Amino acid sequence: MDKINIDGVNLTTLEIITKKQGSIFHGLKKSDYDFKRFGEAYFSTVEKNFIKGWNKHKKMTINLLVCFGKVKFVVYDDRDDSKSKGSFFSCILSPASYMRLKISEGLWFAFKGISDYNMILNIASLEHNPKELEKLPIQNIKYNW
Amino acid sequence: MDKINIDGVNLTTLEIITKKQGSIFHGLKKSDYDFKRFGEAYFSTVEKNFIKGWNKHKKMTINLLVCFGKVKFVVYDDRDDSKSKGSFFSCILSPASYMRLKISEGLWFAFKGISDYNMILNIASLEHNPKELEKLPIQNIKYNW
Repeated sequence: MDKINIDGVNLTTLEIITKKQGSIFHGLKKSDYDFKRFGEAYFSTVEKNFIKGWNKHKKMTINLLVCFGKVKFVVYDDRDDSKSKGSFFSCILSPASYMRLKISEGLWFAFKGISDYNMILNIASLEHNPKELEKLPIQNIKYNW
Repeated sequence: MDKINIDGVNLTTLEIITKKQGSIFHGLKKSDYDFKRFGEAYFSTVEKNFIKGWNKHKKMTINLLVCFGKVKFVVYDDRDDSKSKGSFFSCILSPASYMRLKISEGLWFAFKGISDYNMILNIASLEHNPKELEKLPIQNIKYNW
């Protein structure tokens, strides 16, 4: 995992409470320091070796949790006013490496399925709106996956 | 699945958008008719044939989604002022039978793992607070599981 080098990206290690009958995996609380607003929660799956992206939300902050499998996330900063313009950040999330990835609006991101079955929960600050989502073909931002 | 016979229980069929690289499973939107408030989102797992419950939240409304496996939920109404006092409601949720189960405050509920691995997302209206949660041993409310 890279050191976090982009303003607007947070990684938070979350608690897992393991009991005999089953476990609790913390997600996101209203009182968490990086919680902004609730708009929508939904799941995405991504096939093994497939990359979804690049996506950029103009207004939405996303909070990503991998509840099954293993997923590599890459964030790219091309914001003109950013100290980290041109930087990439990457991390691999899974239930065994259980963290919440916050990506603020204005940053490009893409993600790749690593396991056979991969499921991501996104808790987003706004409801889905195609007008605030920009997309670029994966080859348009060069990254060695 | 039972007909919904308890005021405060909702089942909502959710959309799954299937694409070649992976799918989107809708969860909960702020604008959904039965959305109340966001307090916390977390995952629970439950082992096969284990039952977790009975639990009753005094103040919290919960929204339950099964993102992996198959889980049977049972709701029991013992509210004095309820027309359905003494009634049970049950349903089985899974990604193949993909619905959101809302259970309002004041109702008892318990759930049983059916598949080998079972994972539930709870999007709750309040943050976890042991003071607003009541528990009863599973044998204290008789139900033929």
